[in-house]
Amino acid sequence: MNVYAVILAGGRGKRFWPVSRLKSPKQFLPIVGNSPMIRQTIERITPIIPWNRILAVTGRILKEKMISTVPELPIQNIFLEPIGKNTAPAVAWTSIWLQQHDPGAVIAILPSDHIIGDVPGFQNVLISAAELAWKENLIVTLGIRPDRPETGYGYIQCGSALDAAGMAYYGARFIEKPPLEQAEAFVREGNYYWNSGIFLFSRKTILEAMARHLPELDGRLNALQNELASPQFEAMYRNLPSVSLDHGVLEKVDNLVVIPLDVGWDDVGTWGALKNLFPPDDQGNVALGNTVNVDSKNCIIYAQDRLVATIGLDQMIVVDTPDATLVCPLNKVQEVKDLVAELDRREMVESSQHLTVERPWGNYTIIDAGDGYKVKEVVVHPGKRLSLQYHNQRAEHWVVVQGEALVTIGQEISKITANESVYIPVKTPHRLENPGPAPLKIIEVQTGPYLEEDDIVRLNDDFWRG
Amino acid sequence: MNVYAVILAGGRGKRFWPVSRLKSPKQFLPIVGNSPMIRQTIERITPIIPWNRILAVTGRILKEKMISTVPELPIQNIFLEPIGKNTAPAVAWTSIWLQQHDPGAVIAILPSDHIIGDVPGFQNVLISAAELAWKENLIVTLGIRPDRPETGYGYIQCGSALDAAGMAYYGARFIEKPPLEQAEAFVREGNYYWNSGIFLFSRKTILEAMARHLPELDGRLNALQNELASPQFEAMYRNLPSVSLDHGVLEKVDNLVVIPLDVGWDDVGTWGALKNLFPPDDQGNVALGNTVNVDSKNCIIYAQDRLVATIGLDQMIVVDTPDATLVCPLNKVQEVKDLVAELDRREMVESSQHLTVERPWGNYTIIDAGDGYKVKEVVVHPGKRLSLQYHNQRAEHWVVVQGEALVTIGQEISKITANESVYIPVKTPHRLENPGPAPLKIIEVQTGPYLEEDDIVRLNDDFWRG
Repeated sequence: MNVYAVILAGGRGKRFWPVSRLKSPKQFLPIVGNSPMIRQTIERITPIIPWNRILAVTGRILKEKMISTVPELPIQNIFLEPIGKNTAPAVAWTSIWLQQHDPGAVIAILPSDHIIGDVPGFQNVLISAAELAWKENLIVTLGIRPDRPETGYGYIQCGSALDAAGMAYYGARFIEKPPLEQAEAFVREGNYYWNSGIFLFSRKTILEAMARHLPELDGRLNALQNELASPQFEAMYRNLPSVSLDHGVLEKVDNLVVIPLDVGWDDVGTWGALKNLFPPDDQGNVALGNTVNVDSKNCIIYAQDRLVATIGLDQMIVVDTPDATLVCPLNKVQEVKDLVAELDRREMVESSQHLTVERPWGNYTIIDAGDGYKVKEVVVHPGKRLSLQYHNQRAEHWVVVQGEALVTIGQEISKITANESVYIPVKTPHRLENPGPAPLKIIEVQTGPYLEEDDIVRLNDDFWRG
Repeated sequence: MNVYAVILAGGRGKRFWPVSRLKSPKQFLPIVGNSPMIRQTIERITPIIPWNRILAVTGRILKEKMISTVPELPIQNIFLEPIGKNTAPAVAWTSIWLQQHDPGAVIAILPSDHIIGDVPGFQNVLISAAELAWKENLIVTLGIRPDRPETGYGYIQCGSALDAAGMAYYGARFIEKPPLEQAEAFVREGNYYWNSGIFLFSRKTILEAMARHLPELDGRLNALQNELASPQFEAMYRNLPSVSLDHGVLEKVDNLVVIPLDVGWDDVGTWGALKNLFPPDDQGNVALGNTVNVDSKNCIIYAQDRLVATIGLDQMIVVDTPDATLVCPLNKVQEVKDLVAELDRREMVESSQHLTVERPWGNYTIIDAGDGYKVKEVVVHPGKRLSLQYHNQRAEHWVVVQGEALVTIGQEISKITANESVYIPVKTPHRLENPGPAPLKIIEVQTGPYLEEDDIVRLNDDFWRG
C-alpha cells in the first residue's frame, strides 16, 4: 500500500487578515505554534509518509513561498494551479497524475492549515483510515468528536457501524454550518462529527466517484490527462468548474465512512479560534505581543512590536501588523473576508502583501520613503544571492549591518562586512551575495527620480526570473 | 489699558494619547485645524494684543517645543515651570512678574488648547471683558452658552445682571462636571454657562484676591518676587501648593462676573470632541486618515498613514500612530488618562515620546534597529546645525537624500548633496549642518555595540546642551 498525502495549500486565509495576505497566506504563517501551519501539517505525517509521496497543491503566485517554506519537498511534487478552482479540481489533478505515476496509490487529502494536539494518535488513525480505504474501496473521512456546539463548522451525521468494533461508521448526511440550536442537538445526539476536511481513498475509487458524480469534470480530466505537460494545460485548467470535493462528490457517494478522531483538532478558521488555542488571562483575554489592556475582557488582542492599548473592550478582536490594524467584534469574525473583498475592490496593497516582501534569496522591508529616495532593510539567506542587475534610474548605497557580503559592482568583486558600505551608480551592473554561514543584512538607500521594483534589468539570476 | 495674555500651556493632554505625549502634548499638535492648538490660540489674539504682551507658561521639558512652535514669542515671555503646579501658581508667577514690569496691566488668562469658530466675535468679547475688568476691578470670566447637556464641562450659575444691557452677570456658583439630569436642567434653566477657563482681571485685582483666599500662596509669592531671577526660585516654586485658579480663588470671590460668549467654542477635552468638530459620514463616523470601515457606525477613527480597518463597530474610538494604537469605547474616553498612568507606571516610552523626536535643529525618527545597528531619518531645518560631537562606541554612515549638507569630519569640511554619502569613524569629531534654504534630510546608519543617545560627547553646540 503506497499512501500519498495531497496537501491542499491554495487558500488565501482571508479571515486571518491582516496577518494573512494574498501573497503570504495563513498556511505559510505560524499563526499558532512556532512554524508555518503547512510545515506543522507536513511534519505531522513525515514519520509515516515519505517526502517523495507528499504532494502539495497551491497557487502559482505562491511557488516561491512554498519552496522557501518547505524546501524539503521535491519540486515535481508541487502542483501550481494557474487559478484557484476549489478542492475537487485540485484532487482530480493530483489523482490523474498518480494514475500515470503510481496507479495503485492511496491518497490522503489534508488541509494545510489545521492544528492537531495528539500527533501520534492522529498518525495511528490516519494509517487505519488508509488501510480501510485501500482494502474496501471506501471513501474515508476523519470526523472530529464535537466538544462544543460550534456553528462555524460543517457536520457529518453517522449511520450504522461498519464493524463490530465501532471503529468506523457509514456517513449518512453532510450539514453545513448549522444554527446554534441544531448544533446543540448534534452534540447531544452524539452521532454527529465535525467535517475535518481530511479524506482518504484510493486513486481508483476517487476517479470513479468523480466520473459518476461530476461527469463534466471527469470528461475534461480525461482530456487534461493527455496534456499534463503541454502548454494547453493552463487554459484547460482555467476552464474547469470551481467546485468543492465535499459538495461535488462526497455528499453524493454511497461508500463514505467516518472514522472518529479525538486528537485536539482545530481548523484555525477565524481569529476567534485563538480563544480555544491560547490560555486566557484572568479577564478572559488572549493578549499576545506588546499590549496594555485596562478593564478589557474576553478579547483577542494580537499585537506584534507596536503597542496596542485597549480600554473597557468586551468580546472584541484587535489585530495589529506593521502596516495595518483590524478592529472587529468577536461575533463578526466571519466578516473579515468581506472586508478583504472591499480592500481588493479598492486595490489596496495591504490586501495582498506585507511591508516585508519575501524573495527566493531572502526578503526586504521598505523602512522609509520620500520624494527622491527609498530605504530598505535587505536580508540575504546564507549561500544565496540576488540577480546580477542594474537600474536605469536609481543609484544605491549599501551599508552592511550584519553578516558578510560579496559585492559585485561593474568588474569589481569585493567582500565587505558590518560597518562597511559601497555605492552603486545608476546603470552599473551589480550583485549582492551572502557567502557566509549567517544571515546577511544590509541597509539600502536608493536615490533617483523613479524607485519602483520594475526598474530592475536582470542579467543573470539563480531563480530564473526575467 | 495694557492688556496682557497669559497662555497656560503646561498641560500634558493625557486624554489625547497616543497622539499627545508627555514631550509633545496636545497644545503643540494640530489636533483640530492645520496648526498647533497653541498657535491657533495666539494667532486668535495677536490682532488685539501685541506679541510682546503675550506671556506663556509651560513645563521646562517643553521649552524647545515652545520655541519651535511659536518662534515669534520673545524668549523672556516664556515662563518655564520646574514642575507643574496647576493654574493658580502659574497665574501668580506671571502676575508678580507684571507687578515689576507693568503694574497697571490687565491680564487675560487663556487655555492654550481650545478652539473657537467665530474669531472676530471672540476678539470683541475679549476687549469688552478687559475693559470691564480694568474699570470695575472685577474678575471677569467668559461663559459659554451651552447648546447641549454636556457632562464633561464645569458650569457657572449666573445671578443678577450687572447692567441694564444684560451684557454681564454676577457669577453665583461653580458646578464641576454635573450628572446628565442636572446638566439637562442647567440647559433648560438658561442661566448656566460652561466655564471656558478664560478669565480677565487686573494685576492688582488678582493678587489681592490671592492674598485674601490663598494666603499660603500669597505669603510665598512675596518671597518669590524677590527671587525671580535667583537660583533659589526653582526650589521655592517646587514647594508651592498645587491648586487651580478656579477652585483656590475664583469660587470664593464676590467680584466675579460672567460675560456670555457664543462663538463656537470647544475645549477639545477628549477624543469624543471630534464628534462635534468634524462632519460625520452617512454612518455617523468621523473617520480621518487611511481607514476602511465596514458596517461601523458612530465611531471616531483617527488614522494616519497606516491602514486602520474596522468591522461592525458602534460608538468606538480607534486612534492610530506610528508606534501605538488605542481602542476604546466612546463612553470611556475619560479613562484614557488612567491608561497613560498605567503606561507611566510601566515606564513605557510610548507614554512620553513619539518615534519622531523633536530637536532644536530639526528632528529624527528611528526607522529600523537590530543587533548592532540603528537607522535614523534625520531632518535639519534650513540654517541649523547639530552640535560638534563624537561617539565613543559607534560609527555612522550618512547618506543625503534631500537638500544639501555641510559636513565636518575631523579637520575636513565638505559640502555633500543628495545621493552622496560620508562615513564617520568611532571617536571622530563631526558636525552636520544645513547651509541651504530647503530642509536637509539624511539617512543615518549607526553601527556599533552601544547605540543609545547618551553616547554623545558634545564639543560645541548652538543650543547650549551638555
